[in-house]
Amino acid sequence: MATIRILQQGIRKSAVAGYRGRIHPIAGVALNKDWNSSFATRTFTTSSNNGQQRYHNWRESAALLGTAAGLVGLTLIAKSKNDSHLAASSEEREPGSIVPDLPTYTLSDVSKRKTKETRIWMTYKNGVYDVTDFVSNHPGGSKILLAAGGAMDPFWSMYAVHKNKEVFEMLEELRIGNITEVPEEEERDASNPYANDPKRHPALKPSSSTPFNAEPPLQLLPDNFLTPNDLFFVRNHLPVPDVDPKTYKLEVGIDGASRTKSLNLSELKNRFQKKSVASIVQCAGNRRSEMVKIKPVKGLNWGAAAISNAEWSGVCLDDLLKYSGIDIDYVDCDHIIFDGLDQDPTGSKYGASIPIELARRLKRDIIIAYEMNGEDIPRDHGYPVRVILPGIVGARQVKWLHKILLSKKESDCHWQQKDYKGFHASIDWHNVDFSTVPAIQELPVNSAICEPVNGTSLEEGANEVTVKGYAWSGGGRGIVRVDVTTDGGKTWHSAELKQPDQPLYKTYAWTLWETTIPLPADTRDVEIRCKAVDSSYNVQPDNVDGIWNLRGVLSNAWFKVDVKVPGEEPQAKKKSSWWVNIKATHGILAEFCEWPD
Amino acid sequence: MATIRILQQGIRKSAVAGYRGRIHPIAGVALNKDWNSSFATRTFTTSSNNGQQRYHNWRESAALLGTAAGLVGLTLIAKSKNDSHLAASSEEREPGSIVPDLPTYTLSDVSKRKTKETRIWMTYKNGVYDVTDFVSNHPGGSKILLAAGGAMDPFWSMYAVHKNKEVFEMLEELRIGNITEVPEEEERDASNPYANDPKRHPALKPSSSTPFNAEPPLQLLPDNFLTPNDLFFVRNHLPVPDVDPKTYKLEVGIDGASRTKSLNLSELKNRFQKKSVASIVQCAGNRRSEMVKIKPVKGLNWGAAAISNAEWSGVCLDDLLKYSGIDIDYVDCDHIIFDGLDQDPTGSKYGASIPIELARRLKRDIIIAYEMNGEDIPRDHGYPVRVILPGIVGARQVKWLHKILLSKKESDCHWQQKDYKGFHASIDWHNVDFSTVPAIQELPVNSAICEPVNGTSLEEGANEVTVKGYAWSGGGRGIVRVDVTTDGGKTWHSAELKQPDQPLYKTYAWTLWETTIPLPADTRDVEIRCKAVDSSYNVQPDNVDGIWNLRGVLSNAWFKVDVKVPGEEPQAKKKSSWWVNIKATHGILAEFCEWPD
Repeated sequence: MATIRILQQGIRKSAVAGYRGRIHPIAGVALNKDWNSSFATRTFTTSSNNGQQRYHNWRESAALLGTAAGLVGLTLIAKSKNDSHLAASSEEREPGSIVPDLPTYTLSDVSKRKTKETRIWMTYKNGVYDVTDFVSNHPGGSKILLAAGGAMDPFWSMYAVHKNKEVFEMLEELRIGNITEVPEEEERDASNPYANDPKRHPALKPSSSTPFNAEPPLQLLPDNFLTPNDLFFVRNHLPVPDVDPKTYKLEVGIDGASRTKSLNLSELKNRFQKKSVASIVQCAGNRRSEMVKIKPVKGLNWGAAAISNAEWSGVCLDDLLKYSGIDIDYVDCDHIIFDGLDQDPTGSKYGASIPIELARRLKRDIIIAYEMNGEDIPRDHGYPVRVILPGIVGARQVKWLHKILLSKKESDCHWQQKDYKGFHASIDWHNVDFSTVPAIQELPVNSAICEPVNGTSLEEGANEVTVKGYAWSGGGRGIVRVDVTTDGGKTWHSAELKQPDQPLYKTYAWTLWETTIPLPADTRDVEIRCKAVDSSYNVQPDNVDGIWNLRGVLSNAWFKVDVKVPGEEPQAKKKSSWWVNIKATHGILAEFCEWPD
Repeated sequence: MATIRILQQGIRKSAVAGYRGRIHPIAGVALNKDWNSSFATRTFTTSSNNGQQRYHNWRESAALLGTAAGLVGLTLIAKSKNDSHLAASSEEREPGSIVPDLPTYTLSDVSKRKTKETRIWMTYKNGVYDVTDFVSNHPGGSKILLAAGGAMDPFWSMYAVHKNKEVFEMLEELRIGNITEVPEEEERDASNPYANDPKRHPALKPSSSTPFNAEPPLQLLPDNFLTPNDLFFVRNHLPVPDVDPKTYKLEVGIDGASRTKSLNLSELKNRFQKKSVASIVQCAGNRRSEMVKIKPVKGLNWGAAAISNAEWSGVCLDDLLKYSGIDIDYVDCDHIIFDGLDQDPTGSKYGASIPIELARRLKRDIIIAYEMNGEDIPRDHGYPVRVILPGIVGARQVKWLHKILLSKKESDCHWQQKDYKGFHASIDWHNVDFSTVPAIQELPVNSAICEPVNGTSLEEGANEVTVKGYAWSGGGRGIVRVDVTTDGGKTWHSAELKQPDQPLYKTYAWTLWETTIPLPADTRDVEIRCKAVDSSYNVQPDNVDGIWNLRGVLSNAWFKVDVKVPGEEPQAKKKSSWWVNIKATHGILAEFCEWPD
């Protein structure tokens, strides 16, 4: 089983500028060989040793630049050398420390410098850097712009490859100034139930701040088979509980029975064999923003990144139940209810349940998890304990878990009964009856293009494009194919599928994919589409129209991004378009001319 | 567990006219209460007692006519009474026996009388009947026409409700003549490997005769939750073996191990507990004919009835393996290979395999079956033993099973390696590599409209239509919704789902459905569409284009039938159509007028 190595970065308090004015411990996640050795085509390793090695190689050979995607690095280019504001030898001082002879800027000054026109500035600790001329040479591509006008510190912590002497030297050659101000701590309003929520990574894009819900930038997802904890999308329904691990208890029992088992955190960690499973968590509302374009729906306006993948470790539910005297195969119950510690001001708590037959099928793959990617589960993701239900919608994978109850009935929680259900497009809020359909459990096959992002302008005259994304299906169904087209479906290309070897019918993690395919010669405006096929040969629907529903859940139509190839409009297009139009117009004109009679 | 009662009908040799000139034992299948009691909305009971009761009720009240679908009956109508060729009191003689005073016809005479224009004739035993004026009053609707120009005997045997005194009396009132000829037995060509194939029910529509492949009429499917054995679609890859049950042996073992277990039929039936499971079998090529319309494919031109549902009884594979010293959860194998006794002239046999993780998941639901709907499995369906793999494509459910082998490798059979795999639409025979994708196992969600059939002319001025069909998904996923539209998707209606109570995530039988919905007022040409959603919320693709593949398998786009509502074209339509055309034409004209520049 794979293990995870965390590269914890100590960051000086005064130096974390541009990071929402707060201090934050940022972790960079690196995967070890166990996950990577079975990848068909490339490793996703980003540990600093490997990274340094790659960096050397890359500097030695420009040809490697194209394959260096997934690494975010800096390099010394001739232009920036000549255009230098260098004040002191970078060899002599700590990277990001104050350089006395340089001008001093404020965080506000830096925040205005986000585009080529204004020049692109970033900070690292106390340093201010002008990276404008470096952007196009950045091996990680346009991802560098995620830090434009702000701090690069949190991103560098995620991409540990940056943290080495050579890169620091290159960075200091772009140095233009200092920041000295210490960001103020925000006043906490004790009456605000969200006042004690944890700090979040600045790259997360909130769709709601109270409760906090946010997704990472889509283009960062394909960089890591296991999403770093800090970048993992956050879906909270209520304020984040602050659970004391010393007093934490998990109760296990059968509804109506007097005896329940109660276990503390230490017992969970020490009495049972630790089991790990790599599994995605996906919100039922992932990609809802595409549905909204058809007709309004109720729900957070999620893009396509309300999904992330992690390795979860903890106790097998099966072991825990056996220890509590319950045999999952024979217990006379129909549902397993999971209750959380998150509650609204009235004391109403979050809860969910799954049918017992799903639990029997998943059996030893259901994890009562206390670790996420090898470290304690972060508060936003359920500290100290949550349930992981591979192949099932995020809404049932209750965080801050405090009770497991086997019952004849399903959870009576609002989110089980009156939410997270699928209807057809003619059901809206005036005629919906939530009792008529079952609660969403397993999710359908889905996929998305993460790179290039929608609206990207490709290189002038480009004749091919590299497309990257993710695909996943519920119920443990692996991905057998991802098809990509740049010509509206006239020609399809199969993408290269990338994931550790998992049994085809027990695939709980996502499948990352990549392909480099031709761009059509007859247009400058290209729509790239992708669609995935799972091991049960289920496919994604062609359009959103047929799957629109009042809650905007289960949005899994073919994914589309529009990109531009700068250059003159090709002549060929006009001619072909004319013949097509003659043909198309003929029929309509004929009908048109008939009227009136 | 449900049991099945078979109503075997003895048929006199000389009387089975119009039945391919052959003698055939025909079975009518009736379901007992166990299956029916749990239906939400109606029973599918067709046993003769219940049938007789219903018949009485129906005669008493015309209002019941609309709900009598599923029953095929005859009634006495005033018109036919007056128009009678009656020669003797029907009370005095056996139905279908020769009536001396009536004219004698040949089978060839009868076969020319299939339409209203020629009059519609049918035979029953030695009787010839003119049913022309009765057709529109037939409680089972247009299904009566399946016997036009031929024998009604095989259909009556399926629909046991006909076999009672009252119906026979009504029948004899339509009597016009006799047939006396004894159909000749066809000469058997000993050199033809298909010469020993069994006889088939005349309602089966062959897509290939050697090997024999045929589907029942689509509109008959919703009549029975369990498809009668005679109507069950047939998919043969090779000639049907003629297995002697006295010498039959089933071998069970591990690839490479010297010991194998060998069991005869009596041991299979007596050493193990009998287990039953209701499960559909579906050809991977079901609905291929819709794909062919896009671009030619290789394969039998199946309609939407290459699917049927039966209750299979036999030995749990798990029990059989344990008896053979094999524990499926721990055996060090990756596949289970099933070999059949059907072989081509070179001795090459049919075989298939499934991955061990699918077998572990299905476990006690995999049946080594020796009964189909309560009787010996018919030769066409694998007599004496076949494997039933619920949720999995028919191609792996090997018939005439003679060996079960646990192996590190999958079956090397042609149909496992070079067939029954899914590709995207840009892969054709010039660039296909069958090794790049896994063999089809679980099938995707699918549904079809069985009534009305495509091209039906509804009642003049009808403002609503009753639509019936089936839905099913692989992997044990139940059906949570079937949506039906008559207005191109502007309005969707949820159909009533009909099936015995099965766990939502262990649903192996199909779901029959029905709904009565409004017809649009603005057109006489209506396209009815349906789409199903399974318990994993997988949906059917909108169109065939995105799923076309060179073998024409996995055809599961939204199902469509065109029907006509006779009457004058509504005025409203023309106006709306004109406005739409003005709008549509505007854009094209604008672009058209720009050219040339």
